[in-house]
Amino acid sequence: MFKLFFSPGTVALASHITLAETGADYEAIRVDFAAGEQMKPDYLAINPKGRVPSLITDQGILTETPAILLYLAQSYPEANLAPLSDVFQLARLQSFTSYLCSTVHVNHAHRRRGSRWATEETSFEDMRRKVTENMADCFALIQTEMFEGPWVMGNDYSVADPYLFTVGRWLEGDDVDIKDYPKIAEHSARMTERPAVQRALAEQAG
Amino acid sequence: MFKLFFSPGTVALASHITLAETGADYEAIRVDFAAGEQMKPDYLAINPKGRVPSLITDQGILTETPAILLYLAQSYPEANLAPLSDVFQLARLQSFTSYLCSTVHVNHAHRRRGSRWATEETSFEDMRRKVTENMADCFALIQTEMFEGPWVMGNDYSVADPYLFTVGRWLEGDDVDIKDYPKIAEHSARMTERPAVQRALAEQAG
Ligand SMILES: N[C@@H](CCC(=O)N[C@@H](CS)C(=O)NCC(=O)O)C(=O)O
Ligand SMILES: N[C@@H](CCC(=O)N[C@@H](CS)C(=O)NCC(=O)O)C(=O)O
Repeated sequence: MFKLFFSPGTVALASHITLAETGADYEAIRVDFAAGEQMKPDYLAINPKGRVPSLITDQGILTETPAILLYLAQSYPEANLAPLSDVFQLARLQSFTSYLCSTVHVNHAHRRRGSRWATEETSFEDMRRKVTENMADCFALIQTEMFEGPWVMGNDYSVADPYLFTVGRWLEGDDVDIKDYPKIAEHSARMTERPAVQRALAEQAG
Repeated sequence: MFKLFFSPGTVALASHITLAETGADYEAIRVDFAAGEQMKPDYLAINPKGRVPSLITDQGILTETPAILLYLAQSYPEANLAPLSDVFQLARLQSFTSYLCSTVHVNHAHRRRGSRWATEETSFEDMRRKVTENMADCFALIQTEMFEGPWVMGNDYSVADPYLFTVGRWLEGDDVDIKDYPKIAEHSARMTERPAVQRALAEQAG
């Protein structure tokens, strides 16, 4: 039985959908960001970084989206969530998840989490102004250079798909129109048809 | 025969050391950042993100440090560079490399690459002022919560080690004294004794 700590609207959705895809037993536990629960001792004992997602497994706690996604894919090979037997294709998948984690997510975070990297309100405003352009550039690059279609890696669905779907849901709030990237918009629509996506979204709303 | 594109002082050192550890044939090709080569068409054709490292393999091009490291570890299992047969330990390794990539590297980048996320000189100065504190916090967390010793993952050397070593070399320029983190300082000293580290550093200097 897994326990996933999440907050709605965050990157934790990628891990949540992937859990649902595996068919494993899990409990999704909401961390109340409005109450600052992610920085309180109870949660810091689970994840000292004070972030979501955290996944409690029988063997210990895991954090960081790319790690959780690969862990679930490798733990449930029958769910076919990654090209596990092809070292190069698996590396391409990792390249994609690393890019989302280190660049796209980070660009988005400059909209509301500027205080991680600066101190002055004027800097936060300056950062916020650049988020739209940065996210638009990232999604242009994803559509042109990375996205194979119909799924991220090509014909086979993988953990890259819920990750892209999750980050793509931030575009509207970042004033980027997903319709400017038709392949990504179609991908997002296709994702919402999956039972695992519907289940995770319902559990996060509930 | 691999080709690794690097620039001295960058995160590409982690992949360079790892290549040397595998014993594979490779050529290390310097990208001249002073001349802006990373943004010129020849290099963008290799890596449209305009960053290093990029690794040219027989099967195609790979970018993103965590992906290159796992690819090399999986391609050369006899080099013992990752806990390949233990899904949970491999996920812990991935959690570590994801953290360096998405958080520690990004914190460091705010010292000289502020223009990725803002426009005004005053914002860049504000960002620069916070880098020391952020890098210090990250290394405190790494030492306390992540580093097992004597290597990152415990008794076995892995690709996490050259990655930590590479990022640790940025501390001095970020006004953080590595000696404040004795386990990390010892790790860094231990790394410099490895032939692969000496070889990669010599190739980058040459
Ligand atoms: N690199 C981590 C980043 C996790 C992260 O930054 N999560 C955000 C939500 S999207 C968070 O927990 N923020 C809480 C805070 O900043 O206080 C991952 O990919 O899992
Ligand atoms: N997430 C990438 C980041 C690569 C990266 O940002 N490399 C820097 C050097 S440390 C770079 O190429 N910078 C060139 C530039 O910003 O123009 C990775 O881990 O490989």
